[in-house]
Amino acid sequence: MSAMSTTRIALILHYDGSAFYGWQVQPQGIPTVQAALEHALAKIAQHPVATIVAGRTDTGVHATGQVVHFDTTAKRPLSAWVRGVNAHLPKGIAIQSAHEVAPEFSARFDAYRRAYRYVLCNEAVRPVLLAGKVGWAFRELDVAAMQQAAVCLAGTHDFSSFRAAECQAKSPIKTMYDVKISQQGSMICFDFEANAFLHHMIRNLVGALVYVGYGKLTPDEFHHLLLQKNRTQAPPTFMPDGLYLTQVHYPEHFAMPVAQVPSWLWGIEAK
Amino acid sequence: MSAMSTTRIALILHYDGSAFYGWQVQPQGIPTVQAALEHALAKIAQHPVATIVAGRTDTGVHATGQVVHFDTTAKRPLSAWVRGVNAHLPKGIAIQSAHEVAPEFSARFDAYRRAYRYVLCNEAVRPVLLAGKVGWAFRELDVAAMQQAAVCLAGTHDFSSFRAAECQAKSPIKTMYDVKISQQGSMICFDFEANAFLHHMIRNLVGALVYVGYGKLTPDEFHHLLLQKNRTQAPPTFMPDGLYLTQVHYPEHFAMPVAQVPSWLWGIEAK
Repeated sequence: MSAMSTTRIALILHYDGSAFYGWQVQPQGIPTVQAALEHALAKIAQHPVATIVAGRTDTGVHATGQVVHFDTTAKRPLSAWVRGVNAHLPKGIAIQSAHEVAPEFSARFDAYRRAYRYVLCNEAVRPVLLAGKVGWAFRELDVAAMQQAAVCLAGTHDFSSFRAAECQAKSPIKTMYDVKISQQGSMICFDFEANAFLHHMIRNLVGALVYVGYGKLTPDEFHHLLLQKNRTQAPPTFMPDGLYLTQVHYPEHFAMPVAQVPSWLWGIEAK
Repeated sequence: MSAMSTTRIALILHYDGSAFYGWQVQPQGIPTVQAALEHALAKIAQHPVATIVAGRTDTGVHATGQVVHFDTTAKRPLSAWVRGVNAHLPKGIAIQSAHEVAPEFSARFDAYRRAYRYVLCNEAVRPVLLAGKVGWAFRELDVAAMQQAAVCLAGTHDFSSFRAAECQAKSPIKTMYDVKISQQGSMICFDFEANAFLHHMIRNLVGALVYVGYGKLTPDEFHHLLLQKNRTQAPPTFMPDGLYLTQVHYPEHFAMPVAQVPSWLWGIEAK
């Protein structure tokens, strides 16, 4: 089989992280997004398929803009990689679109900007209809204080204070392009855009920002926390329930579209 | 024990209908909302509790404004009927508020106006993160045509064309106070307010309105369907997934508040 007969396909997908033990294939048939996706892709490709992903999400973390790529020798219309594969996927995963990409495209290594949204329900009573899909804070949060604190995150910083011990990244230095905290009724959205994120970085940032919202930390103390570069001084990791990987950006010459942030994800200004 | 020692309490509750086999207690431990609620109430009351409900919802139908009442000889602060009972409820049910009401109040018989919202996801790919929480129509719907068709529903009509065979209501004649169809991104909300609804009436109305949205029925043909008073001529019942009981109204002298329609329920204009 010649290399010429191989096509590289990239997919944008949605999934409900609460139905899986994270992205990555696990031993002994533990349900993961990657395992379910590769199984469904193999049904359409009629050969084993290995996927490379933009963001390896943890258990309970969702996606509305995850990107993967894979190589196939099968010749299929792009619609087969959407509708055909979706017919073989469990109800917690669906491919939104498929794109033929250049053979050198990597969903992981060419991604230069990633966006995550954390959706937090700020109500006295625990969420019922959105259980597992939003975080929950039952005391009233001071959104203005959280917005003020978050300003210091923009730019290039050593994010060690918000890095999990298990993190395998080469460097704790990341560039945060944008942080925005907005409110719609009782839902608070935290939008983060960076070149890349450390393990548990967003859940750790949200945990600390919620402390600011509760008045347990001032915006200045939050800034000091960032400067300390010491995880042991920071508030605990927040629950995964409300975290969504929403967008991954690639260099323009790959012509890979950026996922739309769904308006149903409680966006005030959908991008 | 004298009748004087009894207190009547009314509750407003949220529940995820996809986790239960409808409202009503079923034999042999089948999980229902009523069974779970009465079990949790008994823990706090320390005696068996029987509840009367405003709307007996079917399997898969949700609520953000269900009202129940019960009598108790226990003396508890109202907060115990919220936080205390919530601690004993499964994650798919939560009490939002508790109210002491007059001994003659009936959650069922005094309700004079009920509001339901049907949320429909109009996207090519099936919903994943909102699976079970929204209905799904994959071809593009003509919202203006559905709005035009729905106008004929306002007022007092014989709704036999939208009545399930199993319906036990004494009369098929109901008064529709308001019908509103609105769109927010890919979500379409159908809001219905009436004195009462027949069995499956809203799912049958949505099924027929979706036919209008697809161009399979004109608004005039939809009106004709209503006038025919014949269920066998109408399109099939729509899936329960996107249906929410949102509000129940009682005469003012009972001082029973009306539930707020949550802004996260994709409401364009939350009431």
